[in-house]
Amino acid sequence: MISERLQKQMDFLVEVEKLKLVYRQNMAVDLSRHENTAEHSWHLALMAVVLAEEAIDPEVDLRTVIEMLLIHDIVEIDAGDTFLYDATANLDKDEREDRAAKRIFGLLPEDQKDRFIALWKEFDERKTASALFASAIDNMQPVINHWASGGYGIKNHALKKEQVVEKKAFIAKASPSLWEYTKKTIDKSTVAGFYSEE
Amino acid sequence: MISERLQKQMDFLVEVEKLKLVYRQNMAVDLSRHENTAEHSWHLALMAVVLAEEAIDPEVDLRTVIEMLLIHDIVEIDAGDTFLYDATANLDKDEREDRAAKRIFGLLPEDQKDRFIALWKEFDERKTASALFASAIDNMQPVINHWASGGYGIKNHALKKEQVVEKKAFIAKASPSLWEYTKKTIDKSTVAGFYSEE
Repeated sequence: MISERLQKQMDFLVEVEKLKLVYRQNMAVDLSRHENTAEHSWHLALMAVVLAEEAIDPEVDLRTVIEMLLIHDIVEIDAGDTFLYDATANLDKDEREDRAAKRIFGLLPEDQKDRFIALWKEFDERKTASALFASAIDNMQPVINHWASGGYGIKNHALKKEQVVEKKAFIAKASPSLWEYTKKTIDKSTVAGFYSEE
Repeated sequence: MISERLQKQMDFLVEVEKLKLVYRQNMAVDLSRHENTAEHSWHLALMAVVLAEEAIDPEVDLRTVIEMLLIHDIVEIDAGDTFLYDATANLDKDEREDRAAKRIFGLLPEDQKDRFIALWKEFDERKTASALFASAIDNMQPVINHWASGGYGIKNHALKKEQVVEKKAFIAKASPSLWEYTKKTIDKSTVAGFYSEE
């Protein structure tokens, strides 16, 4: 007999197949298609494993960081990917994502639902050391991806360098070295014309 | 100054963008394209988080399992995805993957290279409790995916049910409950014609 608990867990794990179909602004590096949120989440979790030592706060707990990064964008199955620089779409983002979290994490057994929603909110609020580091990784990756994919998927958004720097500068609080790397990548991406100087 | 160590870590993390372009036999659930290995790896890591309690051996270490699942298929960037039931392609799989591991993990600083290669080998050998559980998750997911995607991507391979059961039955050693779920999914997939009875 399959327990009710396992059945709920599997219903959730089948539902999240749909995250593979949420496409982001960023491109796959061969430019054949847009990057999707599932593979983006994999990349972030792996970045956290490799770069954990760059976190400045010893309170950062790598397992928590990885779990946050694996689930942080699952709400996009219902709420869609909201482009960081789209002010209008960001107005009702929280409401759309709250509804999505209730439905999707609500497929899980009660205790896991509560735990995942708490973890997702912790990530979103960026107040704990682990959430700050996880968010730093999440904000670093698109900059690296834009550079690696020749700026496609981002060039036509006419982003200004200062807009990018403003959104990303908090990375320094989680890791000065990762911010230095990100900032240098923003600088060379600007020279290459992916973001504009003014 | 970007340290040589961080530069190596980032070179590796940019290189693994390519895992998003390694396509598997399985389909995305809207059947628009094949599943890729990066998003497959995300799905497995998340499955491990949700299903950790189903592991029968208390020695299973979830962080090790997650790390294994995040890196277990990175060698496919060079070696390609080898279909589990393709006996010919499996003949030189080990040699192809060994070369790939040396090149790709070799981009990392020496200590991380050694650690990742050891973790990847541990996964592959399936001898430790964590590797057995990680491998069980890896072998369960395609069966669930075939069912969720209506058998597309697998029906034309004329797989026999007994072939599938033979490859997957070891899941019971890692988790009797997950094997029960997998076996039931194989049974209903056979009734639906995704695998043949004989």
